[in-house]
Amino acid sequence: MQYIGGIDIGGTKMAALIADRDGPLVRISEATVKLGTERAPAEQAMTMLKLACEKAGITLADLGAVGVSSCGPFVRNNGFIELVAPNICGGIGNRGDLLNEWQSVPLEAVLREHFSTVVIQNDCVAALAAERAFGALQNEDNCAYVTWSTGIGFGLCVDGRLLHGKNGNAGHAGHMLLTDQSQAQCGCGNFGDAESLASGRNLEAQYGRSPADLFNAVKEGDVKAHAAVVHAAKWFGRALYNVTATLDLKVFVIGGSIWHHHGDWLEPIVKEEICAHMPALTTGVQLIQPALDSHVADIGALYLVMPEAWLIYWRSQSLWQRVAEVDLA
Amino acid sequence: MQYIGGIDIGGTKMAALIADRDGPLVRISEATVKLGTERAPAEQAMTMLKLACEKAGITLADLGAVGVSSCGPFVRNNGFIELVAPNICGGIGNRGDLLNEWQSVPLEAVLREHFSTVVIQNDCVAALAAERAFGALQNEDNCAYVTWSTGIGFGLCVDGRLLHGKNGNAGHAGHMLLTDQSQAQCGCGNFGDAESLASGRNLEAQYGRSPADLFNAVKEGDVKAHAAVVHAAKWFGRALYNVTATLDLKVFVIGGSIWHHHGDWLEPIVKEEICAHMPALTTGVQLIQPALDSHVADIGALYLVMPEAWLIYWRSQSLWQRVAEVDLA
Repeated sequence: MQYIGGIDIGGTKMAALIADRDGPLVRISEATVKLGTERAPAEQAMTMLKLACEKAGITLADLGAVGVSSCGPFVRNNGFIELVAPNICGGIGNRGDLLNEWQSVPLEAVLREHFSTVVIQNDCVAALAAERAFGALQNEDNCAYVTWSTGIGFGLCVDGRLLHGKNGNAGHAGHMLLTDQSQAQCGCGNFGDAESLASGRNLEAQYGRSPADLFNAVKEGDVKAHAAVVHAAKWFGRALYNVTATLDLKVFVIGGSIWHHHGDWLEPIVKEEICAHMPALTTGVQLIQPALDSHVADIGALYLVMPEAWLIYWRSQSLWQRVAEVDLA
Repeated sequence: MQYIGGIDIGGTKMAALIADRDGPLVRISEATVKLGTERAPAEQAMTMLKLACEKAGITLADLGAVGVSSCGPFVRNNGFIELVAPNICGGIGNRGDLLNEWQSVPLEAVLREHFSTVVIQNDCVAALAAERAFGALQNEDNCAYVTWSTGIGFGLCVDGRLLHGKNGNAGHAGHMLLTDQSQAQCGCGNFGDAESLASGRNLEAQYGRSPADLFNAVKEGDVKAHAAVVHAAKWFGRALYNVTATLDLKVFVIGGSIWHHHGDWLEPIVKEEICAHMPALTTGVQLIQPALDSHVADIGALYLVMPEAWLIYWRSQSLWQRVAEVDLA
């Protein structure tokens, strides 16, 4: 095949990409649609993919396969993957700000109306696959990709193999419960899970300021803001400790906007919390930066369906050098 | 090969076994030695294995390979596995009742003085392998073996593959932290991990009675004892929920003395705690009984080194029918 498509569905933004043997060609992004019928986000992805094809001078029929990285969790309906993401579907969880009543989004069914080869993976699993193929985790058998941003998600790799689980939901460790004493509620409904204690969305809910404002206040010497962020970092570290105890991992690549902007001073706090427990498991655990940029999940989506023969070409260059990028938001 | 040896090392008891193509022949068990040099438990295993050979009418030299299932965690020293188990090594963790100062037990090094083929796995991983080969988890791709007894341990299987991790310590989810508000301390030093909140040893430490006494009191209508056990069951369920969120598992086989004796009435409590969160991940999760008996980790130890050609014979019969069993304790 000559061209492949990629779709990256997040709770806030969606991206569509076209790539060929030498890497991505076009990237279009837009705010994720959360109104209309349950099919709306999937149809939005199709519309964006069509537009991306136009930009690349091809048609949808030229795409040999489409890879999708998406926020989860997933359920299966007649064998097809549907999204039951608390940050998109207003009919589940506790997010009163979502103005739809969707129980799920029939993602795979809609895409299969147009393509015969569709591969859908959790976005952090796809990001992990990309970091292992092209980035910071080549030759690393026991590792994870963690995003610390609006939500907290994990892609997990043990003994050299990515973990999927019964419905492709392995890695939802952001919804692991860390305390029974918290009033902080996650989008999924949980009280006291890692995401409710440390994610950007929940920092905002708890402290009444956006993460950006909160971190600005820290920079300006606001003691309360500093304490709030340190508190969140400790919970984040505790989640990483729990994953280490469960899976005996060695390296965590940490992405997402919070870490991207503040990882330099948050790292020692997170590391200390991990290493405060079970030295037999935690000694030598490493926290490292992603080698791919913030579009790592996009590369992951494409990687899911790219021919193996392309690997050598993609590895040999800066992946984004040729990309025509359009943000419709 | 004609004969294989198996060793099962627990914090309380140790077992040595001899088996041939048709299953186990001899099983010898004894309290685990915790005095002397750091080599003592490994040398005890050798002595017991020698005795088991005598009972079987063979010598150590007749054993083609030795499989070991052992409580962990493990570390590697010059590539050889050593035990750093808090319930055996008095030099680590917080168990004041251990009268040795061991930092680790050089298990593999001692065994390799006698055998060229030695395979060592965490006991719950070995038990899981056995349940998948001969027991309740045949054809189950996303599952775990959990022991709820003196300690709490997991063997994990995702996408049809057992998980090992960087040092073979995957499955130490019993040491995952579940609350920051607990005074209950685990043998590993953690406060508020699953084992500190729900294991037999920690129930004893918290309530001043042995688990057997505590459960007897429940039967006799003691309201406080009942509340204590229900509390422990909820924490145990929460640990299972966290593992489900992390790995998207479908079936948990639960072994260990607490579940073995009281699983019938504890199951709904544990199940309710799991299913109270993230329905997309927890709906349909099953808790089932082990098909192998309480010696499942012994069978696991043997399975680690048994020739594949023996599988069909072992599957065709009741595994313990021929066994000469001796308890030296």
